Amino acid sequence: MEFTHFNQQGRARMVDVSEKEDTQRVAVARGSVYMKKETFVKVKEGRVEKGDVLAVAQVAGIMAGKKTSSLIPMCHPLMLTGLDLSFKFDDENHKIDVEARVKTTGKTGVEMEALTAVSVACLTIYDMCKANDKEMVISDIHLYRKTGGKSGDFVRREGLPWQK
Amino acid sequence: MEFTHFNQQGRARMVDVSEKEDTQRVAVARGSVYMKKETFVKVKEGRVEKGDVLAVAQVAGIMAGKKTSSLIPMCHPLMLTGLDLSFKFDDENHKIDVEARVKTTGKTGVEMEALTAVSVACLTIYDMCKANDKEMVISDIHLYRKTGGKSGDFVRREGLPWQK
Amino acid sequence: MEFTHFNQQGRARMVDVSEKEDTQRVAVARGSVYMKKETFVKVKEGRVEKGDVLAVAQVAGIMAGKKTSSLIPMCHPLMLTGLDLSFKFDDENHKIDVEARVKTTGKTGVEMEALTAVSVACLTIYDMCKANDKEMVISDIHLYRKTGGKSGDFVRREGLPWQK
Amino acid sequence: MEFTHFNQQGRARMVDVSEKEDTQRVAVARGSVYMKKETFVKVKEGRVEKGDVLAVAQVAGIMAGKKTSSLIPMCHPLMLTGLDLSFKFDDENHKIDVEARVKTTGKTGVEMEALTAVSVACLTIYDMCKANDKEMVISDIHLYRKTGGKSGDFVRREGLPWQK
Amino acid sequence: MEFTHFNQQGRARMVDVSEKEDTQRVAVARGSVYMKKETFVKVKEGRVEKGDVLAVAQVAGIMAGKKTSSLIPMCHPLMLTGLDLSFKFDDENHKIDVEARVKTTGKTGVEMEALTAVSVACLTIYDMCKANDKEMVISDIHLYRKTGGKSGDFVRREGLPWQK
Amino acid sequence: MEFTHFNQQGRARMVDVSEKEDTQRVAVARGSVYMKKETFVKVKEGRVEKGDVLAVAQVAGIMAGKKTSSLIPMCHPLMLTGLDLSFKFDDENHKIDVEARVKTTGKTGVEMEALTAVSVACLTIYDMCKANDKEMVISDIHLYRKTGGKSGDFVRREGLPWQK
Repeated sequence: MEFTHFNQQGRARMVDVSEKEDTQRVAVARGSVYMKKETFVKVKEGRVEKGDVLAVAQVAGIMAGKKTSSLIPMCHPLMLTGLDLSFKFDDENHKIDVEARVKTTGKTGVEMEALTAVSVACLTIYDMCKANDKEMVISDIHLYRKTGGKSGDFVRREGLPWQK
Repeated sequence: MEFTHFNQQGRARMVDVSEKEDTQRVAVARGSVYMKKETFVKVKEGRVEKGDVLAVAQVAGIMAGKKTSSLIPMCHPLMLTGLDLSFKFDDENHKIDVEARVKTTGKTGVEMEALTAVSVACLTIYDMCKANDKEMVISDIHLYRKTGGKSGDFVRREGLPWQK
Repeated sequence: MEFTHFNQQGRARMVDVSEKEDTQRVAVARGSVYMKKETFVKVKEGRVEKGDVLAVAQVAGIMAGKKTSSLIPMCHPLMLTGLDLSFKFDDENHKIDVEARVKTTGKTGVEMEALTAVSVACLTIYDMCKANDKEMVISDIHLYRKTGGKSGDFVRREGLPWQK
Repeated sequence: MEFTHFNQQGRARMVDVSEKEDTQRVAVARGSVYMKKETFVKVKEGRVEKGDVLAVAQVAGIMAGKKTSSLIPMCHPLMLTGLDLSFKFDDENHKIDVEARVKTTGKTGVEMEALTAVSVACLTIYDMCKANDKEMVISDIHLYRKTGGKSGDFVRREGLPWQK
Repeated sequence: MEFTHFNQQGRARMVDVSEKEDTQRVAVARGSVYMKKETFVKVKEGRVEKGDVLAVAQVAGIMAGKKTSSLIPMCHPLMLTGLDLSFKFDDENHKIDVEARVKTTGKTGVEMEALTAVSVACLTIYDMCKANDKEMVISDIHLYRKTGGKSGDFVRREGLPWQK
Repeated sequence: MEFTHFNQQGRARMVDVSEKEDTQRVAVARGSVYMKKETFVKVKEGRVEKGDVLAVAQVAGIMAGKKTSSLIPMCHPLMLTGLDLSFKFDDENHKIDVEARVKTTGKTGVEMEALTAVSVACLTIYDMCKANDKEMVISDIHLYRKTGGKSGDFVRREGLPWQK
């Protein structure tokens, strides 16, 4: 196992991918915001009634996905060809699950774009609710699935760390 | 409990804080990256020997903290007066703990800046290691402490959701 | 009448406002997107039923307002303390009216922030509808009202150019 | 007529264009800034004599065209291969007409890039003159012509809304 | 002599300036672009006749000055209250001298903003001329003068390294 | 010799490269930061002992290289496929030499990306040391080598201006 991100001086570099082929790549990432029951209900109902927290999180996540290479230092710039987010209310655990699905045709994968979109969508949910609930936790952010590229397809099979 | 972030048309707005006073504010946020033992050891050793993953994560986190208001739609722009990150290797759980501490003198708090700095530092660790480990999980991102502002001081007392 | 934005070499500069006092400033700007009746009805109904074009335009406008000084070369950076947008459906003319209201405490006004927020909200409406209607026109973007600052308050009294 | 920008949850997404072919695309957009006669003359003369408002607007428009996908939430990032602006003084109506012409080779069109370049060039003209004239109006921003892409070529034939 | 930019873990941080007072601060930086005689003459004449390279460099330098804290990792965000550039043609050495003068009222100085504005103005001159001259050199970028702040005033007295 | 960057109105444009072919391109740029002996020794030793100035400069340079087209007004956006920096301590002259090597497959070269990466890495070194040394000079920034593209390969043969 080697770190590809380091040069001979032991410092970080943007890995040279110029010899890689352009292939179609998809990545799906997931994460969750855990909150008080009261907050959870408010967001869920508020969607219909008063204001849609998730509509703002959706836009924030998509815009952040496009900014990934300016946030993560060694990420290559990529031309995303599709980015969508979806949300699920988990009534049992009072958490909102966020999933981002990103596509590109390029020389590197879009895992970081999907993970960044999920992270910023979660942070936006936090921001919109934090006046009411300072105990929220953003958690479980992971790569769920990826296809395309030389390293092949990946589907997460293991549970999250505390489920083992 | 009301959402302060919505206007009369039920759409999001940047809350009017013009009547608030400038006070000194501090926020401390925390989060963790869980990884395989092999990856964990590599990062820990690599620091000395080959390349410092955390040095890159540190810079990424600080730069992201300064960009918070351009990532989180309803966040007010703020003049940060200090931002530091620290890392801790948790040998038992094979996770790296990240803490960000942010200061400002202003009309709103810096919780989102601290949470954003932690999130992007975690994403950067993920990016630097993902060639070796696709099963990493970014988790437990929460506000640990804040001081300053009308809503007063806050110290997290509860454990994380799955610890209850 | 002098251009304050030019230096002695006849080139643009960011005007020196360091001697100005910090005062509270408000600016309100307005603009409209004219569209086909079919598009207009679709947006108006879509709001309830299928997807809210204006929720996206709202977020885009607010985020653009915060980016004004990085878009307009000679604009001073400012710490916005409030930014809200509202929309009105003009059934007679099949146009959507956009209004942005911006606040700050600072040395210069927020007219450009309000105008930029309106412009980008209009461009976003255009983008969301352009698959159906390429003949939309973004128009009538103007400063409606401002208060604060040495030059005093301003309320637009004249009509738009083609109404005279 | 369908909104392509909404997903099954009724929220906005970046449309999946991964199956589209890369073709050469051109878009031309236009817009105008209406101003007082005094301001108009000043800009026109100032160009030669004291300072060139339009040189600043030109640079601002080009830089904004490149930023389109970070301003308009659902816009795909694109590699522009050419961007030019031109200006025309309309002595009769005391307005400055702005035209942007954008080129790319890609999977989606560059209408939004052209419209954004025009909008920000107009906003910059406004900013440079606003100390003298608060009654300026930015108007008539529209797509004039586009070629390339599956939806085919488009040339605007209709007049502007108030000319009908 | 200590590096203030490092924390106890030996990694970089944004220095805590929250206890510092807001004072008025000015910084003046200088730099030069050396070029072939032919290129030099072309830029000098072109200014009048065909196109003003320096008008573009001016705008680029001012916009870059405002972006300093997003380019230089440990720089504090600052509210610039004035930024101007000027240029001088050095006929003897075929170089263009660039000077940036930046002002703020804040807790830290604006040296980096002035140096960044100069650097990007020089890079822009390079870009505009590089089709004709690949041997240009950007050089001699230094702080010329600063006032304000606890460390007091500074005027550069020494010559440049190769002049000693 | 013509300026390709100006349109018929004598104003700057982004040159139309749509007819150019995508070829693999490499550019190598170099520059130096001259400093007091005391500062030089501190950086060199500090690397091992207390904090690595160059690790921060490395990240800053790479991130700036990716931002080139948003800094240099007429630069085309490009998809970088590799970017690395290296540093050399010149004990004789008390300067740190910086080299950036950039790759892309595209229609225009990456000279500006390499020069921008070097410039911002130098500015970052300056920033990290400026509390101790205000007399540092950033100098000798030039294109060292490029390959690919219609204008062919280039290797700098001449010395720097003051070495002639």
